Formats: sequence, C-alpha cells, structure tokens
Amino acid sequence: MSELFQLFKNTRSHSVALCEPLEIEDYIPQPVDFASPPKWHLSHSTWFFEEMILKKFVTDYQVFNPHFAFLFNSYYQTLGERAIRTERGTITRPTVAEVYEYRNYVDEHIENLLKTNSSSELEELIILGINHEQQHQELLITDLKHTFSYNPIFPVYKEGFNLTAQENSEKGWLEIKEGVYEIGYGGTGFHFDNEKGRHKVFLHDFQISKSLVTNGEYIEFMEAGGYDNFKLWLDEGWSWVNENLIKSPLYWKKIDEKWHSYTLEGLRPIQPHHILTHISFYEAQAFANWKGMRLPTEFEWEIASDQFDWGKRWEWTYSAYLPYPNFQIAEGAVGEYNGKFMIGQMVLRGSSTATPKGHERKTYRNFFQSKYRWQITGIRLAK
Amino acid sequence: MSELFQLFKNTRSHSVALCEPLEIEDYIPQPVDFASPPKWHLSHSTWFFEEMILKKFVTDYQVFNPHFAFLFNSYYQTLGERAIRTERGTITRPTVAEVYEYRNYVDEHIENLLKTNSSSELEELIILGINHEQQHQELLITDLKHTFSYNPIFPVYKEGFNLTAQENSEKGWLEIKEGVYEIGYGGTGFHFDNEKGRHKVFLHDFQISKSLVTNGEYIEFMEAGGYDNFKLWLDEGWSWVNENLIKSPLYWKKIDEKWHSYTLEGLRPIQPHHILTHISFYEAQAFANWKGMRLPTEFEWEIASDQFDWGKRWEWTYSAYLPYPNFQIAEGAVGEYNGKFMIGQMVLRGSSTATPKGHERKTYRNFFQSKYRWQITGIRLAK
Amino acid sequence: MSELFQLFKNTRSHSVALCEPLEIEDYIPQPVDFASPPKWHLSHSTWFFEEMILKKFVTDYQVFNPHFAFLFNSYYQTLGERAIRTERGTITRPTVAEVYEYRNYVDEHIENLLKTNSSSELEELIILGINHEQQHQELLITDLKHTFSYNPIFPVYKEGFNLTAQENSEKGWLEIKEGVYEIGYGGTGFHFDNEKGRHKVFLHDFQISKSLVTNGEYIEFMEAGGYDNFKLWLDEGWSWVNENLIKSPLYWKKIDEKWHSYTLEGLRPIQPHHILTHISFYEAQAFANWKGMRLPTEFEWEIASDQFDWGKRWEWTYSAYLPYPNFQIAEGAVGEYNGKFMIGQMVLRGSSTATPKGHERKTYRNFFQSKYRWQITGIRLAK
Amino acid sequence: MSELFQLFKNTRSHSVALCEPLEIEDYIPQPVDFASPPKWHLSHSTWFFEEMILKKFVTDYQVFNPHFAFLFNSYYQTLGERAIRTERGTITRPTVAEVYEYRNYVDEHIENLLKTNSSSELEELIILGINHEQQHQELLITDLKHTFSYNPIFPVYKEGFNLTAQENSEKGWLEIKEGVYEIGYGGTGFHFDNEKGRHKVFLHDFQISKSLVTNGEYIEFMEAGGYDNFKLWLDEGWSWVNENLIKSPLYWKKIDEKWHSYTLEGLRPIQPHHILTHISFYEAQAFANWKGMRLPTEFEWEIASDQFDWGKRWEWTYSAYLPYPNFQIAEGAVGEYNGKFMIGQMVLRGSSTATPKGHERKTYRNFFQSKYRWQITGIRLAK
Repeated sequence: MSELFQLFKNTRSHSVALCEPLEIEDYIPQPVDFASPPKWHLSHSTWFFEEMILKKFVTDYQVFNPHFAFLFNSYYQTLGERAIRTERGTITRPTVAEVYEYRNYVDEHIENLLKTNSSSELEELIILGINHEQQHQELLITDLKHTFSYNPIFPVYKEGFNLTAQENSEKGWLEIKEGVYEIGYGGTGFHFDNEKGRHKVFLHDFQISKSLVTNGEYIEFMEAGGYDNFKLWLDEGWSWVNENLIKSPLYWKKIDEKWHSYTLEGLRPIQPHHILTHISFYEAQAFANWKGMRLPTEFEWEIASDQFDWGKRWEWTYSAYLPYPNFQIAEGAVGEYNGKFMIGQMVLRGSSTATPKGHERKTYRNFFQSKYRWQITGIRLAK
Repeated sequence: MSELFQLFKNTRSHSVALCEPLEIEDYIPQPVDFASPPKWHLSHSTWFFEEMILKKFVTDYQVFNPHFAFLFNSYYQTLGERAIRTERGTITRPTVAEVYEYRNYVDEHIENLLKTNSSSELEELIILGINHEQQHQELLITDLKHTFSYNPIFPVYKEGFNLTAQENSEKGWLEIKEGVYEIGYGGTGFHFDNEKGRHKVFLHDFQISKSLVTNGEYIEFMEAGGYDNFKLWLDEGWSWVNENLIKSPLYWKKIDEKWHSYTLEGLRPIQPHHILTHISFYEAQAFANWKGMRLPTEFEWEIASDQFDWGKRWEWTYSAYLPYPNFQIAEGAVGEYNGKFMIGQMVLRGSSTATPKGHERKTYRNFFQSKYRWQITGIRLAK
Repeated sequence: MSELFQLFKNTRSHSVALCEPLEIEDYIPQPVDFASPPKWHLSHSTWFFEEMILKKFVTDYQVFNPHFAFLFNSYYQTLGERAIRTERGTITRPTVAEVYEYRNYVDEHIENLLKTNSSSELEELIILGINHEQQHQELLITDLKHTFSYNPIFPVYKEGFNLTAQENSEKGWLEIKEGVYEIGYGGTGFHFDNEKGRHKVFLHDFQISKSLVTNGEYIEFMEAGGYDNFKLWLDEGWSWVNENLIKSPLYWKKIDEKWHSYTLEGLRPIQPHHILTHISFYEAQAFANWKGMRLPTEFEWEIASDQFDWGKRWEWTYSAYLPYPNFQIAEGAVGEYNGKFMIGQMVLRGSSTATPKGHERKTYRNFFQSKYRWQITGIRLAK
Repeated sequence: MSELFQLFKNTRSHSVALCEPLEIEDYIPQPVDFASPPKWHLSHSTWFFEEMILKKFVTDYQVFNPHFAFLFNSYYQTLGERAIRTERGTITRPTVAEVYEYRNYVDEHIENLLKTNSSSELEELIILGINHEQQHQELLITDLKHTFSYNPIFPVYKEGFNLTAQENSEKGWLEIKEGVYEIGYGGTGFHFDNEKGRHKVFLHDFQISKSLVTNGEYIEFMEAGGYDNFKLWLDEGWSWVNENLIKSPLYWKKIDEKWHSYTLEGLRPIQPHHILTHISFYEAQAFANWKGMRLPTEFEWEIASDQFDWGKRWEWTYSAYLPYPNFQIAEGAVGEYNGKFMIGQMVLRGSSTATPKGHERKTYRNFFQSKYRWQITGIRLAK
C-alpha cells in the first residue's frame, strides 16, 4: 500500500474515530451559523473527494447520490447551487448510516483509483483532500463542543478527553533583532495557497514571550475590572462586550463563587496554571493592553517560532488576514479556498490540541473574525 | 381496566405510533422558534403527567431524572427556570431511547396510581393531561412536516400518508336568522377554560358556506394577481406579503409551470378539487375580499356548525382571541394554559386531519398569530 | 361666510396655532417610525384637501408643487408612489416657509371653491378633510412630545401647557343590566366608516368605574412588584416588558428617588392624584389583573359612557379592532382610511386632552397596537 | 495677529462658510448612524476647543452651557456620559442660532487666551483642534450630501458646486524597485498619532497607476456583469452586494437608460471621463480583480506618491488599519483619537475634494469599514 494511500486511510479513519463516542442524535444540531453538525463535516469532506477527484479521474464515475452535491457543498459557488448554510441542522435525511455508506463508497473508489493512476495532479489533489478533511476534523470537535455547551446538563463527550487542560513548558522572553526576514512557505511539501510566496519583510527589534497567558493571569485581569474598563478595549471590542454582556471567556460559568468551564469531559473547575483559551481577539488585545504589552504580528510570530514551544493553542496575532505579495487565486473551485476570505479577519498562528497531528506548520495562516471564541485560542504577548 | 386508563393508554400509544416511521435523526431539529422537535413533544407531554400528577398524588415519588423538569417544561413560568424555547433543537441528550424509557416510567406510575386512587381531582387532571398530549400530537406531526420541508430532497414520512388530500362533501349556503344565541361549552365533559362560560351573543342575519375554498379557487385568485393587489389586503398583511416575498400558500413550489406541494408522502402535484390549506389569516382575508365576501366570526361559525360538515381543516375566523365574559384564570400552573395568550391572535374553529380523533369539539377555540401557515388551515366564506 | 367655511378656517388656523411655539428646527425630526414630524403633518393634511378636493372640483387646478403629492402622501397606495414612511425626518426641503405657503395656497383655493360650489359631495369631503386634519393635530402634538422626550435637556414646548395634569371628577361604580343594546353611530352628522352600521350586541351584567386609574394607584402596582410578576401579564406583554426593560409608564424618570415625568412644560414631579397616562395596553391589562378586575369591552364602554365623565384620556378596551357587521370599504382612496387596519390592534374609546374640541364622539373607535404608549392613554376598570 | 490664530480663525470661518447655503431645516437630520447633522459637527468641533483647551487653560472658565458637554461629546468615553450617537437627529434644541452663539463665545475665549498664553502645549492643542475641525468639515459636507440624497426632489446645495467632477491629469504606470523603505511621518509639523513612528518596511517590486479609475472604465465592469459574478468578489463583499441589492456606485440612478448621479448641484448625467467615486472597498477590490490587477498597499502608495498626482479622491488600499510598530496610545481623552479604531477597517490614502486645503499629507492614514461609500472614494490600481 502506498504511503499516500496509507495517509488517506488514516485520515479517513480518524474522522470516524472522532465520532465514535457520539449518539446518532449528536450528529444533527447546528445551533449557530458559524458551526456545522458532525454529519455535515463527515459528508462534506467526503463530497470533496468525490467532486474534485472521482468525477475528474474515474471514467463513467457514478456519484453515490446526486442529491449529495447539493446538500454537502459548502461555499464553492463555482459548483452550483448549495443548501443554505444556516439550515444544515434541519437536514435529517440522509441518515447517519447512509453517510457512513457514502464514506465507504468514496473510499473504495479512491482506493481503486490510486491503484491505477499515480499522476502528480491526482496526488496533489488527494493531499489537498486530506488536508481539507483534517481541517474539518478540527472543526468537527470544536463545533461539537459548542453544540454540547447549549445543553444545561453538560454532556460528556468522552471521559478523560479534555482539549483545554494544558500547561506551559517554558518561561521568559525572546529577543529578536531588527532586519529583513523571509516569510512564507519555502519548502516542497503541502501548503495552502495563502502561505505561499516566500517574501521579505522588515522587522524591528521585538521581544516575544516563550509562554502563553494562563487562566490565573486572566482571572487577575477580570478581577481588576478588565471587562468594565473601556480604555483597555478597541472600540469595536467594547461594543461587542456590551452588546453580548461578556464577562468571561467562552464556556466559563461561576458556580458558588468559583469559576468552572464546560469541557468535553463535562463541567470542570478552572485551573489557574492551565493555559487560557476560548477568548476572542478583542479579549486578547484588551488583556495585552492591560499588561502594557501587545500581541505579536504574524511575521514576528513566524520568525520567532523556532525558538519557543507552540501547538497547544491557536494564537491571535495583531495581523489582518491579507494576501502575501504575488498571491494568486487558483483557477476553478480550488481557487475559492482561501483568497476570498481575505477581509475582515485576523490571523492566528500555531495550532491547537484539536488540530490533527501532522497538519500543523509554522507558516500556517489560520484566520477568524475578531469576535469568535469557539476555537481553542490563546494569547502570546509581545513588546 | 378502567375506561379512563384505557383512554390514557390509547393516547400515549398514539404518540408513539406517530413516531414509528421516524429515524432517530428526525427527532432532533427545530428550524423555527414556533415549532418543536418530536423528541421535545414526547418528553414534554410526559413531563406534564409527572409534574402535575405524579409529584402531587404519589407519596415519595422519585422523578425519572431531575434535569427533565428543566429541559421539558414549556412556558409554565410558575414551575421554575426553563431551557430556552428556541434552543430545543440543540438538546441531543437525553437520547431518544432515554425519552422512551421516561415515557414508560411515567406510564407505569400513572397505571399504579390509577389502581389506588380514583378521586375526581385526579381524574380531571388525567383528562387534562390526555387532552394536552393530543394537542402535542397535532403539533408533532405539523412541526415535523415543517422541518422536513426544509430538506431539498423532500423526505417521505410515510407512503400514502397525506394530511391535505381532502375534498368537500357538500356545496351551497346556509342562512341563519338574526337573534340572541348561546355560545360556549355548556356540557359536562372535558373542555378548556377558554371555551367555558356559556353566554349570549346577538347575531345579525348571515350566510355561511357549506364548503371550504379549494385549491382551484385559490389558483384563480393567484392568477388574477391576488398577491400583487394591495387593495385586497389588510395593511399588516400587505407588509407580510412583501417582506416575505409570499407568492403562494406554504409548501407550494412551481415546477415546470405546474404547482406542486410538499406533503408527508413527498412532493405532489396540486389537485384543484382538493381543499386549500396552509394559508395565513392574511391570505384567507384577502381571498374573501377578492370574492366580495368575508370570513365568519367565531360565533357565527359555532352557531352554524351543526348544519355543515367540518373537521378537515382549521378554519380562520375574523374574531380575535379574547376572553369570554366572566373568563377566570385558574390558580397555579394550570392557569397558564390559555388566558395569557389572549392578545394578538385570531381564532380558528373546527379541527384538522392532524387533530387526534375525539379531541375536536364545536366550541373549541384554537388560535394562532395571523401570519402562521404551518398548521392545516383553510377558508370558509360568509356574507 | 358659511358655517362650513368657518369650521374649515378654524381648523386650519388651529394647526398653525399649535406650531406657534416651535422653532424651525422642531419641524424636522422623526426619531421613530410610528410618529411624524410637524412639517409632515402640516403638509399632509393640506395635501389631502388638494388631492381629494381641489383636483376633483376645480377645473384646470394647478397643483402648488407636483413633488408634494409624492412627499406628503401617507398610506394611500391608490394614489401612487410614496416617499418612504420611515424617512420623513430626512426631508428638509421644501422648507417650513414653503409649507406655510402651500397651506395658504390651498386655503385660498378652497375658499374660492366654496363660494361657487355647494354640492353635498363637496361638503362631505370638506368635512372629512377637517376631521382628517383634526386627527393630525392630535398626532402633531403627541408626536412632538415624543421627539422632545429624546432630548436630554427636556425642551419646553410652552410654559403652562401640560396635557397630562388632570384629575377625576367623580368616583364609584356604575351597574349596567344585561340585555340587547345598540352600538355604532346612528345620527346624521359626521362619522368615520368604522363606527357606521348601527347594530345590536348582547351585553351581560357588568360594572364599570366612574373614574380613571390615578398615578398614585399605579405606583402602588409598581411598588408591589407589578413589573416583575409574570402572572399578571399576557404572554406577549411579558415579552414586551423584558425585551424593552420596561419599569414604568413612558416618560417617567426616577430622580433622587422621586418619580418625575417629561411633559410639554418640561420635567415635572409625578402627582399621585393625577390621572395615569402613557401606558400600553399590556400595562393596562396587567394593572387590571392585579386589581382582580378587567378592562371593559368597547361595547360596554359605549353603552355606559353617557353615565360617566370622559374625554381626558383615550381608554384602552379589551376589544380588538375588527369590522362591525356589514362594514363596507368605500371605493377609491377614501376607502383606505380605516378598514385595512382592522387586524392586530386594540380599540381605545373616549378622547384625550390632545383631541381637538368637537372631534370627540362616544361612538368613536380609536385603535393602536398594544405596545404603543406615546398617545395619552389611560385605564378605566370594569368587573 | 499670530499665524496660529490666523489659521484658527480661517478654519473656524470655513466651517461657517460651508453652511452658508443651508436652510435651518438642513442642520437637523441624521438618517444613518454613520453620519451626523451639520449642527452637530458645528457644535462638536467647538466643544472640543472648550473641553480640551478652555477648561484647562482659562482660570475660572465659565462653560457656555453645561448641557453641551453632554450633547456634543462624540466618542470620548473618558469625558463622561454622552447623548446616544444614533439620536443626534432628534436634538432640535439648542437651536442653530444658539450654536452659532456658542461658536462665537468659544472663539472669543480662544482669542483672548492666545493673547496671554503661548505655551507650546497650548499651541499643540490648538493645532489639534484645528485639524479636528478640518476633519469634521469634510464629514459635514459628505454627510450633508448623504442626507440630501434621501430627498426624492434632489436638493441643490449650491449651483456649480460639485465635488465629483474631476479628471485625471496623467496616465501610465510607475515602476518601483524592491528594497527597504521608510514609512510614517518624519517631519516636525502636525500629524496624527497613527502616522507617527517612522519605521522601515520591505517592499517588493511593484507597479502603480498614475491615474485613477474613471466612470467609463467602471461602467465597462458593470456591463460585463461585474455585480453578478461571485468570482470577482471577496466572500464578505459578495454578501454585501446581495443583501443590499447593490447594482452601481452610491448615488447612481438609471433614468431612461442613462446613468445619472446625485451631486451637490442636483442630479447630473454620469461623465465617462470623470474619476469614479463613492464606491466601497469591496467594489474597488472586485474591479481590480476583474482587471487582473490589485489595489496597492498603504506602504506602496506612500512610497510612490511623490511621483503621481493625488488629492482628488480617497484611495482604498489593501491594507488593514493597524498600529505601526511602537504605536503608543496617548494618556487621557486625546488618546481615544485613533488607536481604538484599529480593527475591522481598511486604510485609505490621499485626500479628496472635500478635504480642507492644507489638511492633506502623504503619510495621512484615513480609515473606514469596507462597506462605506458616502465618502469620496476611488480606485488606483497596482500590479
């Protein structure tokens, strides 16, 4: 079995393994428009292989079900009409069992295809499909946590499974000297179009922390009235705090005067030495302000990242998600992948405990709107 | 087995039978705030028996699960905190299987209770619980239809099961003479508080149709530009038409120039001789206007109803849902049943093909906001 | 000078007199969609005479300005396109001075017309125009109060001018016997289409208060936790209270622990013996509930009204605004006057201190949505 | 008279001159939350001098009216409660005449102050106040245009006054070589905090157009289906187009198949050789995409700007509005000036025909949200 097929199989199995603790009921709900149900993630990542690969490379390929292209397309407007993004939680049929049949059907066809075709174009698309599915694995588990959090009885996904109980392994500050540095992916492996185009940036002297902000430090900020002091906040962040009555990170609840947080193993007391998570860019920026420091830019982060430990949290940077010089949008549906989101979002660097192993990269550019908190996000300070 | 217990058992079984064609996935979604998932209906009607009867009449009664009172209370503010009404579709746990266990547990306790207690107070509450569950049976099936209608692949609930393929059995007009008439429930059987208090009203001469408006008649209205002519509409209705781009009754779709409608057996061509359904009060009123006629009042309907065939559709009246003279709100949670909704809604009379047998009554006052169409609603004209 | 022309002239002068204390600036703003600027009221009531009378009866009539039909039409969809209702506050041109020229121009033409034409059709339309302008006089002053209330410096319209400092002149309860009564306008004078069609209703025994609820009584309700007790409220009312954080009647402000209210002579301390005003139907109904009483129906009110003092406040009834038997919508634009609003509103009876003298009538049916409070509204209890 | 006082006087007079063609009515409306009425601009810029300077430097200074701080503060949360930003259009009192008295009062006190105090701290604040007022002059005229645009009769501000009838003076492309460049204000004159901190950036080779995009070129884009082709748009931009039914630049109207635009001298036919204006960032970016080019970054713009003609339009860049390295927020209210808006906005460079003479600077960083179009904004292409 080829290495590529092995990677494909492992990735596909990992999605199924993530769903192993689920009840059928858990595959369905979509309480908010920014998250999707497990059933949709399982189907959409499968549809990607069918649409982008099998239809193209397999002669007379019979799609598993012609409705699925309509139901499980996401934002690929090139590929025709889509079911409405905010109504994914209403789609009870096909059933979960049929979705698993769909996965098996597509997996078998990919397996057969790889036996007879080893073009580099196919290989590249398979690798893109694998990376795409890995992205959805991360969303699957973080979206699921979000859905579960609505349930007042705090469902347990799996005992002992807790994405957010992490500690710093080092302390102190790194000093980086000013100069022209090279940024962006420069290797020969897989990477997304948004990180391509190695190019130069000038960085001034800066210091960056070797550790991430902890719950304990953030509680200090809260107890010092951080959420009530407009001077610490960006104007847009201050509106967000007030309109949404934000008083703490997402999933935190005060019970009998003690902070707890909803986790995938149920409600747990907050541990002060654990790394802070589930905060918005606004909160990250306000906290940095309160400390008299700032967030790093994505370029500072990338240059310094060889010298600190990362991978436990997506780290908010004070860089907007914009194209690199010479960024080109690819032709066709694949070109809808990243470029069209390059407005109104902030870059996060690193990776998180929900990121599948091997998917992370120091040049990886993740991005979300400033208000979002359901990903596993944290703060690294700079100055 | 007592007659009452038999009725209880039949009613409880009927809820389960309604769900027999469902997949687990179908029990979950709540796409709109005015409808609820099947799982919620099954749980809530069970909770009603536990909360209103078992807790009161069974010494040392152990609730099945203390969380359920919180999750499956609906609007009974007297009984404490409630899960948020619009988030019912997010609650995946307890599972459907656990909900059926809950039903069995409560049924057994009711059965045991009825063996030892035959007070009239208990009997009355059991009968109220039965009627309450019957109301939720009707909502269960109409809510389910609504959820299924979001799915672009038109799921089939059950072949041959079609609530809306009904015809008129008679034609022509009834003439009723003016005079003082008696209105409201005057018997000794079960009835809701809103229909109690037999009282007098004065009616002027009126005529009322023996038949309901058909799809064919309504298509004439549509083809005559009914939806484009503001003169036919109440001001609020005209806004509703324009803000929601209403062009036809709910669930209608034009395919290849022919009208179809989503039904519980899938997409079906509209039959002109079938009775029109799934229309709002606004549409009913505009249609009557276009005909140069009007909708009857609820009093006219009640007085004339012995002389025409009814029961195939809830029929919009031009009466607001207001209290009868001497209407009294009962003490406690039971008092929250009807009175507090007596504003901003219109009365519908009759019953529909989704109403459980034996639940209908000519003095029954159903009510919805003017805009709602997901119930099986139709038009009877008066002049 | 004919009596009719005198009435016309007096009415037209009264509108101008109402605006005498205004600055130019005050003629412009429209902070909410349910109210209109003074400039609009002055223009629209003038446009009504031009559109409905001068264009019809004056040969070769030259409109003052062809744009005005577009700008100052209100809801008469029959008469063509309209400026958007919610954007009246953006229309700075024509200037206020031009609007007064427009008024003079139309007044002169009406004067000339009345010298040469005395058809009953013309007379009826002039009288309709006068009554229409009187309605807008009431709105002009209540809308103005509403706009002024947004200004944190509490503008004074006129010293000594205070619409809401009224007291009850009598006390106690009237008893009315059950029977068939006649309702609706039965005379030969002016009346609106919605009160036409004298007809019979059956009323049961009832009692109705000779006095209106006072501020002092309402403060008791507030201090007894009236706004916090869901049991007192209609479900829709309870949502309204909570979504809008309602804690008191409109315009009330607590300053140094004492209740004050914004009035047209500025901020004034609440006087407990003054009649309560600026409350919604929801508040009226909750208060009645708290007292263990109820609001009268509009029929009860009309029948009893000869025996109590009224005219200081519009009085909420527990009757929905629906057509009388045999209500007919008139042909053409005049027919858009009342009928199309017969949904979703409650009837108020009586008149207020803002109602022009001579405009009130015991058969008069005023109507507003349950939530509105900017009119001078009060509570008369029944039981 | 000192040069500084002369500059102060000229600036103050210019605000008054801008309002010279206005009727009192025009000073009042605020149809949208992002714009303010002329009266507010006149008052707020005056309040700035009173609050930041007179209160600080004049012993026993008597404020003109203590209410004004409350009414005419804008976003300075440090300085206490504010009137609600979206309700400025409701504030009819103080009158326009009183606002002019307020201006005179403050001007006299500033004049007197400058006679006796010539500290550099005072001078700097006066200069800040002048620049602040200049910013409001630009907003005053663009906000006014926006308000006038709601009026279906197209009011004329002043004959011959037309901000948008501009042509390009040169053509062709500049080529700039890659290297490390210096960015930011490096001189000794006035500048805002957001452009301070001269620092280095690395730029790659790029070309930038010497001319701005014209109406004619943009009409080609429109006629080629630019507004209907999702591939050209950022995802957020595509939503904006569809939700707002955008079909053309702001103020454009098609009349008898020909494009016209509302200008301050009334409705005018679009001239193809005039420079395009009133477009959003989304439109700028989609147009550039359609051309196979891109927008410049703010750094590219600044470095190239000595070699092209600018000043006729604010030019959208593809740079987010973020802090420069070592950006520091000043202490106190002055610190609220710029830093807190550094999220969710795009940078515009240059200046426009509405910018007061002398206010422009090549290092100036203007910023708006991507969707806004009411400023005089245009497109310069890069590649």
